[in-house]
Amino acid sequence: MKNIFALAAILFTLNSLAQPYALGEDKYIKEFYNISLSEQQAYKWLDHLCNEIGPRPAGSLNAEQAVSWAEEELKKLDLDSVWLQEVDVPHWVRGTETAKVKEFVKEYELAVTALGGSVGTPADGIFAEVVEVTSFDDLEKLGEDKIKGKIVFYNIPMDPTNISTGFSYGQAGRQRWAGAMEASKFGAVAVLTRSLTLKPDNYPHTGSMSYGDAKVKIPAAALGIQSADFLHEKLQQNKGLKIELVLGCRSLERTTSYNVIGEIKGSEKPEEVVVVGGHLDSWDLGTGAQDDGAGSVQSMEVLYLFKKMNYKPKRTHRVVLFMNEEFGLDGAKAYAQYTKDNNINHVIALESDGGSGTPRGFSIDANMATVEAIREYKPLLSPFGLHEYTKGGSGADINQLKSENTILIGYRPDNQRYFDYHHAYTDRFEIINARELELGAAGMAALLYLLDKYEMKPIH
Amino acid sequence: MKNIFALAAILFTLNSLAQPYALGEDKYIKEFYNISLSEQQAYKWLDHLCNEIGPRPAGSLNAEQAVSWAEEELKKLDLDSVWLQEVDVPHWVRGTETAKVKEFVKEYELAVTALGGSVGTPADGIFAEVVEVTSFDDLEKLGEDKIKGKIVFYNIPMDPTNISTGFSYGQAGRQRWAGAMEASKFGAVAVLTRSLTLKPDNYPHTGSMSYGDAKVKIPAAALGIQSADFLHEKLQQNKGLKIELVLGCRSLERTTSYNVIGEIKGSEKPEEVVVVGGHLDSWDLGTGAQDDGAGSVQSMEVLYLFKKMNYKPKRTHRVVLFMNEEFGLDGAKAYAQYTKDNNINHVIALESDGGSGTPRGFSIDANMATVEAIREYKPLLSPFGLHEYTKGGSGADINQLKSENTILIGYRPDNQRYFDYHHAYTDRFEIINARELELGAAGMAALLYLLDKYEMKPIH
Repeated sequence: MKNIFALAAILFTLNSLAQPYALGEDKYIKEFYNISLSEQQAYKWLDHLCNEIGPRPAGSLNAEQAVSWAEEELKKLDLDSVWLQEVDVPHWVRGTETAKVKEFVKEYELAVTALGGSVGTPADGIFAEVVEVTSFDDLEKLGEDKIKGKIVFYNIPMDPTNISTGFSYGQAGRQRWAGAMEASKFGAVAVLTRSLTLKPDNYPHTGSMSYGDAKVKIPAAALGIQSADFLHEKLQQNKGLKIELVLGCRSLERTTSYNVIGEIKGSEKPEEVVVVGGHLDSWDLGTGAQDDGAGSVQSMEVLYLFKKMNYKPKRTHRVVLFMNEEFGLDGAKAYAQYTKDNNINHVIALESDGGSGTPRGFSIDANMATVEAIREYKPLLSPFGLHEYTKGGSGADINQLKSENTILIGYRPDNQRYFDYHHAYTDRFEIINARELELGAAGMAALLYLLDKYEMKPIH
Repeated sequence: MKNIFALAAILFTLNSLAQPYALGEDKYIKEFYNISLSEQQAYKWLDHLCNEIGPRPAGSLNAEQAVSWAEEELKKLDLDSVWLQEVDVPHWVRGTETAKVKEFVKEYELAVTALGGSVGTPADGIFAEVVEVTSFDDLEKLGEDKIKGKIVFYNIPMDPTNISTGFSYGQAGRQRWAGAMEASKFGAVAVLTRSLTLKPDNYPHTGSMSYGDAKVKIPAAALGIQSADFLHEKLQQNKGLKIELVLGCRSLERTTSYNVIGEIKGSEKPEEVVVVGGHLDSWDLGTGAQDDGAGSVQSMEVLYLFKKMNYKPKRTHRVVLFMNEEFGLDGAKAYAQYTKDNNINHVIALESDGGSGTPRGFSIDANMATVEAIREYKPLLSPFGLHEYTKGGSGADINQLKSENTILIGYRPDNQRYFDYHHAYTDRFEIINARELELGAAGMAALLYLLDKYEMKPIH
């Protein structure tokens, strides 16, 4: 047996030495990081986007300013082409919003914010009893008898014990997305939902919701965590508690906006397209620094770094800044339609929409053989904190490009802090760490460089 | 060849299945995280330590309060014993500090803070010309001729292109540690050093310095980055620029303080001791949240988690909260001496003094065989973000225990943000993310649990 063990060891050693990349790639890749960390181009762009332009909900004047600005900045990069793609978007506006607990002669103000897409209340508000539920089963059990004419308060916390905060977000997310739809069926007059966050502060977190098949559209708003806990406590003492809810939000006419697109034409295979992108729109409460200003400027920086390094990609590399990810994925859908109409061959799409945390790795939406092939580049990228190469989802925007001929990849920064700020007032430039943002941009560039140079394709 | 390849594959598969740990350990380990992330005991302790007690420089009343508090908290854990170890410590106090650029009729105030251990200036300050250097070579070249009677301004930035910020800190650190010592030899009357940080704000960063073999002790202080850049600009225009520097710092009599120690007696091998620790003292500018309140409460939580899980370690597990890491390592030296005097067999020591960032892994100070043996537990710990198991240094305090019979391990959280706050006013509770802190504590507990259960020792 001894000889066979020795042979096995040798074979495996040889195998592990047969890297699918040339010697010296480690040094080349480090250059992406040197430029990114010294110049901090993405961080400078993000400063402008957040602090000079500000929040960018689809249909807003700010969103249009962001479009013009991004187009202008991409033009400065001396790309082969930069253009705008028309996108039809909704235009929802927030207005005044208040929620007051009325208890005997006392009144308590709650931190509240309308969910995106909610209808408003009448101008003088809705005044109704509150009924708390901690699951959709609760809702079913209570039924029309106990719900009709009332405000349903969904108080379903995110599970703190999952290591992935995104997983907990998914678990608790239904109250936001479907809470109004389901409560409406039992005759509720409005819903309040616990904010989807793990940080017990009192900034409410908005996000999109759907009325689905509900016949009556009822107003829906999120409460800050402290307000949700306060309301829960109050309800222990006084089951008949009433709330006065005023939401001034409403939908205006749909309008025209744009995806911003820029590309470097491939030197050898221009018909094979690699997309890198984030979404340019944001919610209106903060300034969309992590969601998804970060992903937008990181994607822009990928092409910036290619130009700076004078790397001429074999394939066409295109940055797409999608419009209205938050509220209907209109930009992503328009881009996918354009792709289909023009029979564009996307070999790879990479999205950054997981915030600006320190790098962790990539989630790859492809078959296992393809995931394993990409994982072979890990030795080159793990020195930069990119250890995780998992098979999984990618991103909401590029997911519209899903096909077996396209490798979809989501950049995955650390997400422990992500939901602290997500869709809230606190998603502002101040929470961004320049180095973490830049490490992400350089890592995305480095991965795409490797996949271009070694002509990675989906393995069938 | 085909058969041999197949055989090799089978052998290696078998080999990789031969894990050095029992089935089900993954579930057991997850429990550490469940408790830690739900209860957030370390975070609660840190809140008290930072916000109720505050900064804790050695010799201060606050440091004594921290000692009493930590002793009391450990006693609540129902450990087998809790005690204080006397430590003789220096007592340096800061006093007023100002630095003013005087240029013609104008005056500009710089953000300045004395380096720990610096002598003060006369009460009416030092008023002298400034000479800037960007390296120690510069200093040599200028020589006594150009330096005598002047204030030397070391303006050596940390290199932003290293991925490890700690490495850049090491490279640029000599200006702080030895700047005064070296400039004094050429007759300088004081030194100003660029703060050791990568964040371009204007909070100056203190830290210890040494006069080494210098015959004359001259005052030494750090400038905030913006002030350093401002001074540099001013010096371009006016080479003869003068600064008035006032530092009220001074050393008081040495005094008595304590290491705080608590332990769970080993159930099978009580004479084999495992130490886990951080340092209880901090600099005086912030409240020592990340440095090293974080490491202190994480270490306390390791024993808390053992108790909560009802895990009875085979070996004695001892938390040591060291006194005065920042300013002479007195606590660590005293503990090492006690170890020697009592012939204590430390098999493992784990230190957390790298901040409270999201987990990255461990740095192991042991031979390669031992490092490889510990690396075998990586599959159990990488789902919690612990991917890096490198051979390297551990921590300043436990380094005093270095011997070939002891495995020294440093917990290594992500360090991108660490030097943003290090030794500055900004090292406060607000910068701590509860989940990142708790993931660290649980990861430390999980590693020590595995090393205890499977009786890891240095491999000779």
